[in-house]
Amino acid sequence: MTNTYAVVLAAGQGTRMKSKLYKVLHPVCGMPMVEHVTNNVAQLGVEKIVTIVGHGAEKVKEQLGSKSEYALQEEQLGTAHAVQQAASLIEGLPGTTLVVCGDTPLIRSETMQSLLDHHAETGAKATILTAIADNPAGYGRILRDESESVSKIVEQKDASIEEQKVKEINTGTYCFDNEALFEALKLVSNNNAQGEYYLPDVIEILQKQGEVVAAYATDSFDETLGVNDRVALSQAESFMRARIAEKHMRAGVTIIDPATAYISAEAVIGADTVIQPNVIIEGNTQIGEDCLISSNSHIENSVIGDRTVIRSSHVYDSTIGNDTAVGPYAHLRPQSQLGDEVKIGNFVEVKKSELGNGSKVSHLSYIGDASVGTNVNIGCGTITVNYDGKNKFLTTIEDDSFIGCNSNLIAPVTIGKGSYVAAGSTISKNVPSDALAIARARQENKEGYVTKLNSRK
Amino acid sequence: MTNTYAVVLAAGQGTRMKSKLYKVLHPVCGMPMVEHVTNNVAQLGVEKIVTIVGHGAEKVKEQLGSKSEYALQEEQLGTAHAVQQAASLIEGLPGTTLVVCGDTPLIRSETMQSLLDHHAETGAKATILTAIADNPAGYGRILRDESESVSKIVEQKDASIEEQKVKEINTGTYCFDNEALFEALKLVSNNNAQGEYYLPDVIEILQKQGEVVAAYATDSFDETLGVNDRVALSQAESFMRARIAEKHMRAGVTIIDPATAYISAEAVIGADTVIQPNVIIEGNTQIGEDCLISSNSHIENSVIGDRTVIRSSHVYDSTIGNDTAVGPYAHLRPQSQLGDEVKIGNFVEVKKSELGNGSKVSHLSYIGDASVGTNVNIGCGTITVNYDGKNKFLTTIEDDSFIGCNSNLIAPVTIGKGSYVAAGSTISKNVPSDALAIARARQENKEGYVTKLNSRK
Amino acid sequence: MTNTYAVVLAAGQGTRMKSKLYKVLHPVCGMPMVEHVTNNVAQLGVEKIVTIVGHGAEKVKEQLGSKSEYALQEEQLGTAHAVQQAASLIEGLPGTTLVVCGDTPLIRSETMQSLLDHHAETGAKATILTAIADNPAGYGRILRDESESVSKIVEQKDASIEEQKVKEINTGTYCFDNEALFEALKLVSNNNAQGEYYLPDVIEILQKQGEVVAAYATDSFDETLGVNDRVALSQAESFMRARIAEKHMRAGVTIIDPATAYISAEAVIGADTVIQPNVIIEGNTQIGEDCLISSNSHIENSVIGDRTVIRSSHVYDSTIGNDTAVGPYAHLRPQSQLGDEVKIGNFVEVKKSELGNGSKVSHLSYIGDASVGTNVNIGCGTITVNYDGKNKFLTTIEDDSFIGCNSNLIAPVTIGKGSYVAAGSTISKNVPSDALAIARARQENKEGYVTKLNSRK
Repeated sequence: MTNTYAVVLAAGQGTRMKSKLYKVLHPVCGMPMVEHVTNNVAQLGVEKIVTIVGHGAEKVKEQLGSKSEYALQEEQLGTAHAVQQAASLIEGLPGTTLVVCGDTPLIRSETMQSLLDHHAETGAKATILTAIADNPAGYGRILRDESESVSKIVEQKDASIEEQKVKEINTGTYCFDNEALFEALKLVSNNNAQGEYYLPDVIEILQKQGEVVAAYATDSFDETLGVNDRVALSQAESFMRARIAEKHMRAGVTIIDPATAYISAEAVIGADTVIQPNVIIEGNTQIGEDCLISSNSHIENSVIGDRTVIRSSHVYDSTIGNDTAVGPYAHLRPQSQLGDEVKIGNFVEVKKSELGNGSKVSHLSYIGDASVGTNVNIGCGTITVNYDGKNKFLTTIEDDSFIGCNSNLIAPVTIGKGSYVAAGSTISKNVPSDALAIARARQENKEGYVTKLNSRK
Repeated sequence: MTNTYAVVLAAGQGTRMKSKLYKVLHPVCGMPMVEHVTNNVAQLGVEKIVTIVGHGAEKVKEQLGSKSEYALQEEQLGTAHAVQQAASLIEGLPGTTLVVCGDTPLIRSETMQSLLDHHAETGAKATILTAIADNPAGYGRILRDESESVSKIVEQKDASIEEQKVKEINTGTYCFDNEALFEALKLVSNNNAQGEYYLPDVIEILQKQGEVVAAYATDSFDETLGVNDRVALSQAESFMRARIAEKHMRAGVTIIDPATAYISAEAVIGADTVIQPNVIIEGNTQIGEDCLISSNSHIENSVIGDRTVIRSSHVYDSTIGNDTAVGPYAHLRPQSQLGDEVKIGNFVEVKKSELGNGSKVSHLSYIGDASVGTNVNIGCGTITVNYDGKNKFLTTIEDDSFIGCNSNLIAPVTIGKGSYVAAGSTISKNVPSDALAIARARQENKEGYVTKLNSRK
Repeated sequence: MTNTYAVVLAAGQGTRMKSKLYKVLHPVCGMPMVEHVTNNVAQLGVEKIVTIVGHGAEKVKEQLGSKSEYALQEEQLGTAHAVQQAASLIEGLPGTTLVVCGDTPLIRSETMQSLLDHHAETGAKATILTAIADNPAGYGRILRDESESVSKIVEQKDASIEEQKVKEINTGTYCFDNEALFEALKLVSNNNAQGEYYLPDVIEILQKQGEVVAAYATDSFDETLGVNDRVALSQAESFMRARIAEKHMRAGVTIIDPATAYISAEAVIGADTVIQPNVIIEGNTQIGEDCLISSNSHIENSVIGDRTVIRSSHVYDSTIGNDTAVGPYAHLRPQSQLGDEVKIGNFVEVKKSELGNGSKVSHLSYIGDASVGTNVNIGCGTITVNYDGKNKFLTTIEDDSFIGCNSNLIAPVTIGKGSYVAAGSTISKNVPSDALAIARARQENKEGYVTKLNSRK
């Protein structure tokens, strides 16, 4: 098999984004565009990925890390000039080089593979990825000869009326015979209005050399979208959202409204789980089977078991067991670990705490920096007082204990196994197992007080 | 008038759904597909509905109950075989039989009626419900003769290039002369690649017998969607969502964004009520006139009066009066009954409780198993302590009383009419009418304490 | 330059809206339709805007105030009759009169200007704003002669088969030579089925007088939508929503899902701010640069600084500084003023309060009628007890103080600079600077109590 290399063009500023963030770092479905591209390229099993960096070079390298090698394009002198920067890494190597823009996050690796396959089959020195546009205005048109080879790429401004009717357009993605590519690059001139070196000129150079140039037309125009401004960014987001949702639906997930299912590309979701409208699932999240994720939930980098229900809640960097119920209006902050058959009810915040199987925090509580055993019932309004203004301390609540409503547990403190804290108590000392702890004032009824008060006014 | 019977095909497993749930039980806008179908059929006033059950027979029967009679198709040997199972219930009866799939929840009863009317008018022995598909690929095409009768149904794989251009397609819904149907069913063979008995073969058999076969083309292709996987399920959901929203808008409800108005088919909404984006209204919910249901509200099986405002809240199986305000971020759990001019504010949970006219629970409270009178003011952070770890108890708060902030009312307890509970009190004994109840420790200020503390560190 | 006048037709009841609210007062993206129209007209720099009022005249006048002059159409006798009511204000004045319907909120002032420009260029006595409809059925068709002038407007019912194929339609927006208009109006008769005076008759009258009638075709059919029922209202909302979102995206705002970005026309948003799905931004709201407004946030009439994060919260009539974090599930009620680097966490309500730089209210608290200094830490569950059932009182919390969890601060009360309130305290007296205030009962542990209790049962 031929060796394959990939050059990813990622040096541009992207002025039409009107952003301090470099264009290719703008995320689509939570992942920077250029990372979608390099991930898709990586699936092809290429020998090398060379990302051409320029504006924001350090940030792009930081983002992609070891997923790519890098070549710096110090000045942005055109796409041919950009590819030329990869010379020190791949020039002269036998094989095929895929050139893809860092702002085309939707091109699937399957499509790239089809492009490479077509390239191999036709024996062309260059193959253009093309698409059929309903409205081709503005794009370079692909003219083919009788043998289906590309005879010419005509830019919009140079196209005759007849040529303007051609709907097959150049997507800006190519593959080349690597040796021929770098030979041809040397011949590209910047003798044009913008004074730039353009990659499509390589096509013309190869044709003049008598080489065959092929074109592979993908049937999905949408997939080839290049993102140059935030309107296109939102379109890319929408296309990818639909693609991700479809993948899950075909695998057995019910998504009530795919248009409002904001799911990251990495998320894993089990069969017969139901995703209600307007749910955000970000990052590396795994959700089991038969779960219900109800509307407006926001889940990030978390692992959720089977048959668990998350209702209208926020969950971050947490682990949740099976048959557990969360929400509505709960907030699991990072490092929360819930066991099986746990209940976290409304207006409850959990932070950096562990709750054992069968434990319940049903309402209006804050559980932070706590280790809670199994079958613990934490009453409404309970607060782990974990901060004294200087430091954070731990609370331990052992198995089978019952914490009465509106209790304050002043950490560091341990509530012993099977103990009982009376409602309204502020607990500042450890509670032994099986003990009742109480810390509240005696009730006094002042009869007729209200009548008197009112008569005075 | 001719008697009409209906056979609903609901025996399939639906393997492409990739689900433990049987296909026809998957809900669309909250109601199982097959129930939409039987409900729509029932509106025609048919003599009998026979649902053909197979996979998940018991679950389907449990869902539909007495809405249908049932015939069991033990093995799934094709659609003709399925209809044949109804023989013991309707074979030989004079009249017309409608055959409709249990996975076509969008076909309206009006469309079914038009099919039946067309059948009666033409005097055909069989009439096919057809639709015009922009992209008919994959569907059986309807070929008509000069008299507009059906000459042939051509399956995709058998269609000539010319026939493939035909856009009128077979929707899989039919009506038949009942006697002719069961006669013809006996002649259907399974002499085909899949070894199945196909219902469209009945059409050919009737034609060979010299009978006229008619076709009624609905103008809505979308309506005839058959749901075979979860992608189609989400499309059905979207179509039905739009249909329900349009019905309400035409009746005088403002829906800011119909695409994100998730309203059950049964819900009733009064004129001049405004539904903001991303609202879920499920089950048998009734909302009055001039209400505002703000974004992200989730309301289920509840009754809401006029001029009431529900802001970004969850409401389940509850009753709410007129001129009442709920939310944002409130949670009314089942069996909550709010009177008129009640206020339930943010971060308030109400469960199985009654609140009389003019009462207010404005913030951060839990009212559970409570009976609250009229004009009661319940301060921020109040908790009805209704559970001692073993049992739940009732709290009674009588008219005109004032509950200070952060109070615990330990049930069973009665707070008398016009009484006053001081903020921060844990109330474990009844409070007489007009009394002031107080249960808190005296405040002590330790001057300079913080300075000393800091100097020590 | 010629003087320009505008007549806005706003007298109709709008029976198809099925509403107690007069048609033109129905809001689109938060602003009444007629106000969109008069605002757009005002941008043209016209001499006079005359709004023709009828049904709900007082409400319309109250809404628009001094933005317009008014003429009352007591009986609704047709569009020509409506324009005639403006006679006392503009008849006989030299210049051009734009006539636009109060139910066409989407027509941009740029389009109106192009209409006026075309009118001036052609020297016509009347110019019709037209659009190209994919499906023109139901609209009046524009027939043009060889010189591109309008030869005829044909209503749907009068159109020949050939004329029905014409896709250029009358939008109901016109401009006229003002003097010619009022002369022609006198000649309009109500000799038709409805007995009404129709404005398009003016066109025919002018043509009969040998005057040229021009037409200016906008390229956006959507823009000319007239809203006659709530289905059209939701479409207008959708178009305007898309227009507003596009404006912000082109200016450098990332909008994850423009379809669910509900932003008012007046809102200002800084570059590199990210708007997540399903966010509502209403009224005169200003948001700075580099902010994150996460999903489900609802912001109204508020000013937000740079680099501030609002997560899934409600914010009304408030001011928020830079680098501040709000939410998730926070509720800022009117007159909340947050400084820089403030944190308002989950389940926190702030009302009519000021919080200085660096102060934190992280969980489950109510801060109402309070003045909070800088670098104050307010513990979880803290409540400002601002209401005694009769009056509201103020709470003052001075700089650098620390309020322990579950404290009640009974207003009026001052917590001195650098002081410390112990968790679980109900504070009813002022706390001096640097003091520790404590008000709670001593904890008692009753050992073995739970064992005994259980053995008894």
